[in-house]
Amino acid sequence: MDEVTEPPAADFGLQRVLAALADRHRLAIVRFVAFHGESWCAQVMQDAGLDMSKSTFSHHLRILRDAGIVTKRHEGTKSYMCLRKDDLDSRFPGLLDSILNADAEPVS
Amino acid sequence: MDEVTEPPAADFGLQRVLAALADRHRLAIVRFVAFHGESWCAQVMQDAGLDMSKSTFSHHLRILRDAGIVTKRHEGTKSYMCLRKDDLDSRFPGLLDSILNADAEPVS
Repeated sequence: MDEVTEPPAADFGLQRVLAALADRHRLAIVRFVAFHGESWCAQVMQDAGLDMSKSTFSHHLRILRDAGIVTKRHEGTKSYMCLRKDDLDSRFPGLLDSILNADAEPVS
Repeated sequence: MDEVTEPPAADFGLQRVLAALADRHRLAIVRFVAFHGESWCAQVMQDAGLDMSKSTFSHHLRILRDAGIVTKRHEGTKSYMCLRKDDLDSRFPGLLDSILNADAEPVS
């Protein structure tokens, strides 16, 4: 059962988006999917330089989905995540690019 | 004694800036000084629609200064705050404008 709400773009909240991105692990996840496109969640966890448990990753993913930053979909036994760039760009023009273009800070 | 560090622009941290701005009261303060320019702190507290104690306002101001978003200076018995727009624009191009241009959410 998936209790996370993925809000429509009109319901995105600026404070919620900023809070979701104000974390080095979540920024690393967002940078990864911004660069690689839709990605298998297990691959993001493994390749984005995140040293965390699966439940911690799920926690971060939930925060990103609740804020409207990513979507998650299931295909067979795998889960995939995708950045909602168009929705974010339409709701907060320039915000995501300014964050993605900032120097990445180390994850750990 | 003022224990707050106002970092040079080169030391601004993206996560710290985003966290500082991920609060409706601090966003209201930033919007006020972005619109009015350097402002008397007591006036910001009174006119920015903030219903809070002086100590709570000082707490928010400290977070904004620590992140590099505003400076504070004293003149006689008054304190003034000023948005570090040029420093923020140089460190994170487009970030501040995208946030200031987003629809303001209600403070309370």
